[in-house]
Amino acid sequence: MALTSEQRAEIEAQRSEPQLTSRPTVAAMENLLFTPFEVLDHGFLRVVDYMGDDGAVVQAARVSYGRGTKKVSEDAGLIRYLMRHRHSTPFEMCEIKFHVKLPVFVARQWIRHRMASVNEYSARYSILDREFYLPAMDQVAAQSSSNRQGRSDALDADTAHQVLEILRRDASQCYDDYESLLNPEGRGLARELARINLTLNTYTQWYWKIDLHNLMHFLALRADPHAQYEIRVYAEKMIEILKAWVPATAAAFEEYRLGAFTLSAGMLKVVRRRLAGETVTQENSGLTKREWSEMAAVLDGAS
Amino acid sequence: MALTSEQRAEIEAQRSEPQLTSRPTVAAMENLLFTPFEVLDHGFLRVVDYMGDDGAVVQAARVSYGRGTKKVSEDAGLIRYLMRHRHSTPFEMCEIKFHVKLPVFVARQWIRHRMASVNEYSARYSILDREFYLPAMDQVAAQSSSNRQGRSDALDADTAHQVLEILRRDASQCYDDYESLLNPEGRGLARELARINLTLNTYTQWYWKIDLHNLMHFLALRADPHAQYEIRVYAEKMIEILKAWVPATAAAFEEYRLGAFTLSAGMLKVVRRRLAGETVTQENSGLTKREWSEMAAVLDGAS
Amino acid sequence: MALTSEQRAEIEAQRSEPQLTSRPTVAAMENLLFTPFEVLDHGFLRVVDYMGDDGAVVQAARVSYGRGTKKVSEDAGLIRYLMRHRHSTPFEMCEIKFHVKLPVFVARQWIRHRMASVNEYSARYSILDREFYLPAMDQVAAQSSSNRQGRSDALDADTAHQVLEILRRDASQCYDDYESLLNPEGRGLARELARINLTLNTYTQWYWKIDLHNLMHFLALRADPHAQYEIRVYAEKMIEILKAWVPATAAAFEEYRLGAFTLSAGMLKVVRRRLAGETVTQENSGLTKREWSEMAAVLDGAS
Amino acid sequence: MALTSEQRAEIEAQRSEPQLTSRPTVAAMENLLFTPFEVLDHGFLRVVDYMGDDGAVVQAARVSYGRGTKKVSEDAGLIRYLMRHRHSTPFEMCEIKFHVKLPVFVARQWIRHRMASVNEYSARYSILDREFYLPAMDQVAAQSSSNRQGRSDALDADTAHQVLEILRRDASQCYDDYESLLNPEGRGLARELARINLTLNTYTQWYWKIDLHNLMHFLALRADPHAQYEIRVYAEKMIEILKAWVPATAAAFEEYRLGAFTLSAGMLKVVRRRLAGETVTQENSGLTKREWSEMAAVLDGAS
Repeated sequence: MALTSEQRAEIEAQRSEPQLTSRPTVAAMENLLFTPFEVLDHGFLRVVDYMGDDGAVVQAARVSYGRGTKKVSEDAGLIRYLMRHRHSTPFEMCEIKFHVKLPVFVARQWIRHRMASVNEYSARYSILDREFYLPAMDQVAAQSSSNRQGRSDALDADTAHQVLEILRRDASQCYDDYESLLNPEGRGLARELARINLTLNTYTQWYWKIDLHNLMHFLALRADPHAQYEIRVYAEKMIEILKAWVPATAAAFEEYRLGAFTLSAGMLKVVRRRLAGETVTQENSGLTKREWSEMAAVLDGAS
Repeated sequence: MALTSEQRAEIEAQRSEPQLTSRPTVAAMENLLFTPFEVLDHGFLRVVDYMGDDGAVVQAARVSYGRGTKKVSEDAGLIRYLMRHRHSTPFEMCEIKFHVKLPVFVARQWIRHRMASVNEYSARYSILDREFYLPAMDQVAAQSSSNRQGRSDALDADTAHQVLEILRRDASQCYDDYESLLNPEGRGLARELARINLTLNTYTQWYWKIDLHNLMHFLALRADPHAQYEIRVYAEKMIEILKAWVPATAAAFEEYRLGAFTLSAGMLKVVRRRLAGETVTQENSGLTKREWSEMAAVLDGAS
Repeated sequence: MALTSEQRAEIEAQRSEPQLTSRPTVAAMENLLFTPFEVLDHGFLRVVDYMGDDGAVVQAARVSYGRGTKKVSEDAGLIRYLMRHRHSTPFEMCEIKFHVKLPVFVARQWIRHRMASVNEYSARYSILDREFYLPAMDQVAAQSSSNRQGRSDALDADTAHQVLEILRRDASQCYDDYESLLNPEGRGLARELARINLTLNTYTQWYWKIDLHNLMHFLALRADPHAQYEIRVYAEKMIEILKAWVPATAAAFEEYRLGAFTLSAGMLKVVRRRLAGETVTQENSGLTKREWSEMAAVLDGAS
Repeated sequence: MALTSEQRAEIEAQRSEPQLTSRPTVAAMENLLFTPFEVLDHGFLRVVDYMGDDGAVVQAARVSYGRGTKKVSEDAGLIRYLMRHRHSTPFEMCEIKFHVKLPVFVARQWIRHRMASVNEYSARYSILDREFYLPAMDQVAAQSSSNRQGRSDALDADTAHQVLEILRRDASQCYDDYESLLNPEGRGLARELARINLTLNTYTQWYWKIDLHNLMHFLALRADPHAQYEIRVYAEKMIEILKAWVPATAAAFEEYRLGAFTLSAGMLKVVRRRLAGETVTQENSGLTKREWSEMAAVLDGAS
């Protein structure tokens, strides 16, 4: 279980008495507030606050479009239109704030998304807990030979056990020495120095706040199969939350982003030729082998 | 009166039934929601939504500081500390959304603040109303001779009347022609072209959303006496709203930003010499005349 | 001619003696520096400075990929890969700075792109020139009936002449009064107030600096056929400059952005069914009429 | 020595033949290009490219101010004025790009500055070198008791030796296991997983590009005595580079930022009272003890 009972009690204590508000409120999100979703072996994700709903997207778009659209278009249709034509500013009008516990190496990928606000637990100021990420057995995988930045199949059980044993031993040793370095009765090293001894799988936590447009951009990249598994599981959990929060926007996002495919100019020519009845091969397609196989995987279900 | 009864009815219709929420809620802000504050002759400002409160700033800061501070520091003290030491990220954890009606020339200054989200009423898509800004008599002012980008005293009543008559006549003529160009029974010119005939004092409107840190940065610049009067009145109204929303943050903002003064390295030397009993003049101060008078105005109440 | 001989002389005077540099230098860009390209009736666009080239994109990508790629991939191929997979950060490593003269209503669209730096000529500080945009005859067009935010065919010559006469008369009248309001021998109104009497087709100018990634994002939106003609002509000129500056990147941009088409999840199903030999109609496609016609226009050349 | 001869050769190989350019060129910067400055035990910092100079700041400001200022103000004076009044946009018109080698824990602080572009060496794609940061003896310091996020005096030599031995041993062990996990003849673990075993003092590298305004913001925070030593040394080196690049801007930055002190509203009252001859103590000052001592340290040289 990712959360200790102490952590659960601390989160629970933050729950305030429900109060009346005239702000847009989403019943499904109220149920999610203060509920930590477990991710990986010690991580979690929970919604701390949110602003706006599908209606707030529409409301903002209609200011920019004026009174005219009110008659002609209902909300979901307008949201689909905005998404299809990449009119992204109305989606910036909603905001969400998460409390996330995640390994440092995941945090390092995550922070690359600059259009967000973040406050991280400071290891200069406080002492980190003895918690580090160890992959589940089926995630202890070999280097991919086809994809230089990906993983392949799981290693055999024996090897995986050895790997996990090494990871556990080194992280433990480093944490033991971190504590020993810090000990004010002993060496009393400054926290900002002692922490440099920790391994990259150590857990950290932060508050992370982002608008709906930038959240979807983050999710499109991090829920992608090419993203590293350990960040993808956070992104997938967030997509579930997205569906609860802004169902019409989430549906349009799946239709026009997650489930979409962009044909390059060259691919477009190939599709036109094929639709006109011509048989096209990679050799006469004008595409590289890699482009050809990427397209074939999507259009013909080949891989 | 800035708002027509039709506009008031439209705003009122957006007010939804209060609902229960577990999110941080600020009673004083609930009273402000859906209340348009009149600004200038036809403009307004109203809060559409907000996220977070003073407690949300503290909560985010304490993640970054860890459990330690809980005992030693109460909320207002921590907020003062964060403001004094320019630890700005916890203030990004609150967000506010306004609906604003404002003249185009004010919108052009406002939009320069990039760290915000905006959806503006589109004059390509819709027709703008016949509403344009005319200054009040006491704001029809002469060019400042000392400040190349400011105004001086109000013109005499006769001249001011002439000025207002010219502004009114030109804006009216341009709007009449705008309507005539657009008229589908007549010329039927495209909206995106017809609008180029309007004057810069025509009113537009937008939804504008910003986090608390960037809002304060905007306010520090736009509530400053050097800001143009017509944007300053919006900023001053927002400072009132700030006090209702996040009173501890607003107090710290006044203490460490609005009411503060930055001594340059050279000014610091002068202050040290004076405190040590020396009589310092501009000539032996090392400061330029302009720096000297800026400092004297603040330290000695001279101007 | 858009530029007065005085303006040309002023620009020419900024040209400095060529100097030796070890920075990446692009011969084709050196020829463009200080050459103003005329746009619209009084506007221009000129490159003031640039940083980096195609090689700088590759160099940055290879830091992030490490030594490995040096053997397997040559520069243009790597750039195509980065573009196709939306690895955008290496394109942020190049930067370009323009000096632009443009009508205020175009500037209002342009400034919405926040990921850029801008310094605009200040009408609080200085007096604007008597220059305003009047469309060419073939651009005096009717409102589109199918596209609420676009224009349709040109108006007939008589009507167009009337339109231009109205635009000219109102802009002239407003400018005459602007001068009269400003006149220190007369009313002496503050510049920051007098300018509000000007029409939205008045020319302004600014320095605008942006990185290559964000420039391409701007161009994809503003060189699009749905963009307003008056901003599109600036974007089209910039695409020419892009080709001179970073030819490999520009080619990839045309292949994977400008000439590409994104199939939504629903469209993808239709294409798969058609490629498998099925006859699909809008009625049994699952697509809306609008989606169907957007797709047909691209895949079958219908419109 | 921080750089291996292999690394020096690689950097040297990037130096291209000097070419003629009409862009603003700074002789002192040309000398710095391709010169890696050593920082910490294995880190470095080198300028890869730059755009603009002091003149480019002035040029941009004068567009926004128009022709008027040309006579009244020379460049350095205008730059001082812009800096004093926080007119920051002209400083965005210059850009600089660094190649930096730095420990991961420093990179984690550095990346918090979002207004920059970065491409980091990818440990998913490539293998990191066996290089980790070990503090110099005089930097092996105790936790500060007065500042919860800082360090105090150096530990005694014996303890420091023990600390360094622990840091060295753990980093070595983790790196040995990293190599062993990766070994394709052995376990063949995916790179993206093996790297999680490394310690936070492992070196990484990146290309980092930022505009002059945001660079100064970074430097004001990271060259501050409260910043962690290991990032401060990079910032201090950059300030030297700043002086070579834009000497007038660097001088104004020292006068109005680095060497300046902001008096809060309450401090301002105290200074006024003291200048008027009153003796003020902390007790009757209205300031907290902490504010009082911060002010006293600056104004009276007390600490």
